[in-house]
Amino acid sequence: MAETEAVKEKTLLRECSAELAGTFILILFGCGVVAQVVAGGIGDHDSIAWAWGLGVMLGIYTAGRMTGAHLNPAVTIALAAFRGFSWKKVLPYSVAQFLGAFLAALVVRWNYTEALNKFDPGLTVKSQGVFSTLPGNGADIGVHMWGGFRDQIIGTAILMFVILAITDLRNTAPAANIAPFVVGLLVVGIGMAWGTNAGYAINPARDFGPRLASFFTGYGGAFKDQFGDLYFWVPIVAPIIGALVGAFLYDLLVGRNLPISDEEEPGQIPEEERAA
Amino acid sequence: MAETEAVKEKTLLRECSAELAGTFILILFGCGVVAQVVAGGIGDHDSIAWAWGLGVMLGIYTAGRMTGAHLNPAVTIALAAFRGFSWKKVLPYSVAQFLGAFLAALVVRWNYTEALNKFDPGLTVKSQGVFSTLPGNGADIGVHMWGGFRDQIIGTAILMFVILAITDLRNTAPAANIAPFVVGLLVVGIGMAWGTNAGYAINPARDFGPRLASFFTGYGGAFKDQFGDLYFWVPIVAPIIGALVGAFLYDLLVGRNLPISDEEEPGQIPEEERAA
Amino acid sequence: MAETEAVKEKTLLRECSAELAGTFILILFGCGVVAQVVAGGIGDHDSIAWAWGLGVMLGIYTAGRMTGAHLNPAVTIALAAFRGFSWKKVLPYSVAQFLGAFLAALVVRWNYTEALNKFDPGLTVKSQGVFSTLPGNGADIGVHMWGGFRDQIIGTAILMFVILAITDLRNTAPAANIAPFVVGLLVVGIGMAWGTNAGYAINPARDFGPRLASFFTGYGGAFKDQFGDLYFWVPIVAPIIGALVGAFLYDLLVGRNLPISDEEEPGQIPEEERAA
Amino acid sequence: MAETEAVKEKTLLRECSAELAGTFILILFGCGVVAQVVAGGIGDHDSIAWAWGLGVMLGIYTAGRMTGAHLNPAVTIALAAFRGFSWKKVLPYSVAQFLGAFLAALVVRWNYTEALNKFDPGLTVKSQGVFSTLPGNGADIGVHMWGGFRDQIIGTAILMFVILAITDLRNTAPAANIAPFVVGLLVVGIGMAWGTNAGYAINPARDFGPRLASFFTGYGGAFKDQFGDLYFWVPIVAPIIGALVGAFLYDLLVGRNLPISDEEEPGQIPEEERAA
Repeated sequence: MAETEAVKEKTLLRECSAELAGTFILILFGCGVVAQVVAGGIGDHDSIAWAWGLGVMLGIYTAGRMTGAHLNPAVTIALAAFRGFSWKKVLPYSVAQFLGAFLAALVVRWNYTEALNKFDPGLTVKSQGVFSTLPGNGADIGVHMWGGFRDQIIGTAILMFVILAITDLRNTAPAANIAPFVVGLLVVGIGMAWGTNAGYAINPARDFGPRLASFFTGYGGAFKDQFGDLYFWVPIVAPIIGALVGAFLYDLLVGRNLPISDEEEPGQIPEEERAA
Repeated sequence: MAETEAVKEKTLLRECSAELAGTFILILFGCGVVAQVVAGGIGDHDSIAWAWGLGVMLGIYTAGRMTGAHLNPAVTIALAAFRGFSWKKVLPYSVAQFLGAFLAALVVRWNYTEALNKFDPGLTVKSQGVFSTLPGNGADIGVHMWGGFRDQIIGTAILMFVILAITDLRNTAPAANIAPFVVGLLVVGIGMAWGTNAGYAINPARDFGPRLASFFTGYGGAFKDQFGDLYFWVPIVAPIIGALVGAFLYDLLVGRNLPISDEEEPGQIPEEERAA
Repeated sequence: MAETEAVKEKTLLRECSAELAGTFILILFGCGVVAQVVAGGIGDHDSIAWAWGLGVMLGIYTAGRMTGAHLNPAVTIALAAFRGFSWKKVLPYSVAQFLGAFLAALVVRWNYTEALNKFDPGLTVKSQGVFSTLPGNGADIGVHMWGGFRDQIIGTAILMFVILAITDLRNTAPAANIAPFVVGLLVVGIGMAWGTNAGYAINPARDFGPRLASFFTGYGGAFKDQFGDLYFWVPIVAPIIGALVGAFLYDLLVGRNLPISDEEEPGQIPEEERAA
Repeated sequence: MAETEAVKEKTLLRECSAELAGTFILILFGCGVVAQVVAGGIGDHDSIAWAWGLGVMLGIYTAGRMTGAHLNPAVTIALAAFRGFSWKKVLPYSVAQFLGAFLAALVVRWNYTEALNKFDPGLTVKSQGVFSTLPGNGADIGVHMWGGFRDQIIGTAILMFVILAITDLRNTAPAANIAPFVVGLLVVGIGMAWGTNAGYAINPARDFGPRLASFFTGYGGAFKDQFGDLYFWVPIVAPIIGALVGAFLYDLLVGRNLPISDEEEPGQIPEEERAA
C-alpha cells in the first residue's frame, strides 16, 4: 500500500538511521537471548534459534520502509553486486549496521552485568559467546578457524539464496507485509540446522559490533577463539563471500528463469522490498 | 475493511469493557502458563515465553476493534504522550486493564488451587511468580530491586519501540489483520531474551492486578521480593518510564523520517490500529 | 473470495463428510503426538501442545469451506445457541465429529501398536492418555473428577470466547484465510496454560471418540480415571457448558458493543466464516 | 498477482532447475538439523521437526513460481494421477528432486565432517539417520521393515490429503502467498506426531538422495536398516502409495463436494498453485 503514498524525500542519513535502529533491535534480541540462556540459565539452544529469528523479523519491521532492512553488510554487498544497490551506499550502510549492533551489545552487557559476573567473573571465552561467535560454539568438536570459515560461507550462502527467493516479487513472495516474518523463520531454521560449527554469525555486523562492545567492557580475549587463534576476521570475511555465492546460485538456478513482471525491470526488485 | 462499515457510536464504557476483556484473556494465558509450569510441573521457560506471547496476541484480537488493544497502562500512557491518545481516557483504560488482569488471576488462582496447594502449601515466594514478577525470577542472581528497575525500563522500551514500528502504517506494518500475531511474537522474543532479571512484566496491569489477586487469596508476602524489599512498585513505575523512552527513540530514529501518507496526519496512526 | 463463486448446492451429508474429515485430521495429529511422546518417548509436553494446535489448524483448512469447520460438538452447540446455527444440524454434525475422531484414533492405535505394546503391554491407564483425557493427566495432583469438571468448563469457555473474537468480522478478524492458523495457536496456548488439571479435552468428540476406539481395541478401563471414578462424561458435559459460558461472555463484554457492519445482520456471522 | 504478469515461456529444464533448487534448500535444512542434533549435540527432536518444516516452507518459496514446488516424487505422481499434472514430466521432475536432495546431502556431509567423525568415526547406523530414515529411528521399538512400510503409507497419505486441502482454491486456501508457511507447519506436525516408527521420510527424494550421498561418502551400510534388512526401498515405495491414498481420500470426503469456482474447471487447480 506504500505505493499510493506521497513519498517524502529520503536522505542517506535517514536510511542509515533506520539501518542502525533495525540492527539495534536485532542484536537486542540476539545477544539478549544468549545472555539469558548462557549466563541466566533460562532456556536452551532452541530459545536462541527462535529469539534470533524473531529479532531479525522485528529488526526488518523497524527498518523495512526506509531501506528494505538489510541489517547485514554481507546482504548489502550482495545486493550491490547482484541487484543494482548503489555501491556508494555500501560503506555508510555497513557502518550504521555495525554501530547499531555495537550499541545494542552495550545495552545487553549493561543489563546482564550481574548475571555475567556471576556466571563468568573473569569475562573469558566461557561467556564470550554471548557477544560473538566461536568455532564449535566454544567447545572442541574438531572445528577450528578454517572449519568455521567454510561453515560461514555455506551458512550465509543459504541465507542470501533464500532471502532472494522470498523477496523476489516474480516468485511466490509473501504479501501483506509478512515477508519479514518468513525471513525471521529462515534465520530460525539456520540456527537449528547450521549453528554447530561456528554459531551462525552469517552477518559481519552482528558479530564484530558486539565483539568490539565486549572487548571495550572487559573481554580481553574477544578477538581470539578458544584455541588462541585470531578468529574475529572469519565471521566478517566468510559471510561476504557466502552472500555473493548464494545470490549467484539463486539467479543461476531460479532467478534468471522467472517470468518478467510487467511492472519491473527483469531482475530488479523495488528497493523497498529488498531483503524485507 | 472496517473503514467501509457503519460505525456504531463507541462509548468510553464500551471501550473499557473491551480493554478489560482483552487483558482478561491475556492474563488467563499468562498466569495460566506459569501456574502450569511452576505448580503443575508441565513445560519449561520456553512454554512461558510462547504462551505469554500467544496470550498477548489473543487479547489483541479480543479488544482490537474497540480500542486498538492497549492492554497495558504503560502503552496507553505512551500513546497519549506520543500519538495523541486522549489523556482523559488514560485512567479509565488503566483501571479496566488492572481489573481484567485481577479477575483473570482469580480464575487462575481458583482453577490451580490443588496444584498450588500441593506445590507450595504456605503460599510463599516459591509460587508467587505465578502471579507477579520478582527480581531474578525469585532466585539470587545478583539482581535486586534497582536491577529490576533498570531491566524493566529497558524491556518496556524495547516493547514500545517495536510496537510502534510494527503498527506504523507508514512503515512495513503487517496487513490482513495479522499485526496482533506479530506483536505476540514480539512478546515471545522479549520473554526469551529479556526475562532473566525481572520476569519481563513490562506492563503495570499485568503485574499489579495478579499481585493483588494473590494477596487477597492468601499470599501475604505479595508486595515484597525474596530479599524482603518492597518490590511491587518496580513493575509499575519502570514500565511507564520505559514505554516513554521507547516511543521517543522510535520517533527519533525511524518514525520522524518516514514518508507522510496521503491519508493521515504525519505521526498520527488511526486509533483503531494503535498497538494492534 | 468465495462470494464470487458459483455455489454448488450443499447438502447436509456433504457437510457432515467435511466435519468428519476435519475432525479425522485433527485427531490424527492430536492422538498421534501423544502416542509419539508417551509411547514413543520422542518429544515432550510442548510437542503435544504444538501438534494439537497444528492439528486443529489443519482440520479447519480441511473442512473450512463446507461448514466453517466446527470440529467440536461444544462449538456447534454454542453456535446454535448464540449465532443462529441450525439446531437441526447439531446432532448430525456431532455424530460426524465423533465418527471422524473415532476413526482417526483407530489409525493411531493401529500404527502405534508396537510402541504401545512395548510401553504398556497391559493397555492400562498408563497409556490411556494417548486417547482420552484424565484428571491430572493420570497423575495425582489433587485433582479428581469435579476438579476436572471445573477445569473443562473454564478451558472451553476460553476456547469459545476467543474463537468468537478471532472470527468476528466486526472485530479484527485475520484476513487472507489465516484465521485457521490463529485458532490453531489458540489451542497451542490452551495446551500450554490450561492442560494441567484435565488434559484440555475442551471438545466432547475429541475425547469420547478416541476413548471408544481405545475401549474397542483393548483398553478395558477406558471409561474410568486413575482413581476408579467413572470419568468419561466429564469431558463431554463440561465443555458444552463451557462453550455456552464463553460465547455469552464474549457477547457481553465485546460482541454486543461492536459496530454493525453494512453487509451483515448484527451478531450474525456468515456461516462460512463461523469458527474458521 | 502472478496472473497480470507477462509470462515468459517456461521450459521443462527451467522447471527441473527450480525443483532441484527447492529440494536442495529443503534438504540443506532437513539433513542439516539432524546433523546438528545427532552429531553436534545441539537441540532435540522438536528442533528436527521445526527445521524440517521450515526447510519445506523455504523450498516451496524457492520453487513456487516455476513449478508449484512439488519437491517430492510422491506428490508429483499423485498430482499426475488426481490433478492432471503431465505424466511426461513425472520422471524429469523426480530426477531433479533426487539430484537436489543428493547435492544438499553432500554439502551437509562436507560441512559436518568433523562432527560426524567425532560422533561416529566408523560412519555406521549410529549416524546414518542424519541422511536417511530407519525403522524406529534406529532404535528397537518393535518396528521393522513392514511396520515402517505401513507407517510411511499413512504418513504420506496425511501429507497429501492436507496439501490438497490447503492448496484447494475452492476450499479455505491461505492467500497472500502464505500457503508455503502452512504446508511447512503441516510437516512440523507430521514430525511431531508421525515420526516414531520410521522417521517420516514421506518423500522418496528426501530419503534416497541423501542415502546415496552417504553411501558414496563412507556409509557402507546405507541401504540396510539396523536389523540388517534391505530397507532403502521402503521410503520410496510406501510414500508413493500413501500419496495416492491421501489424494483419493481428500477428493472422496471433501474435494468432490466443494462448490465449483467460476474461474476453473472442477477439480483442476491452476498449475502454479499446486502443492504450494
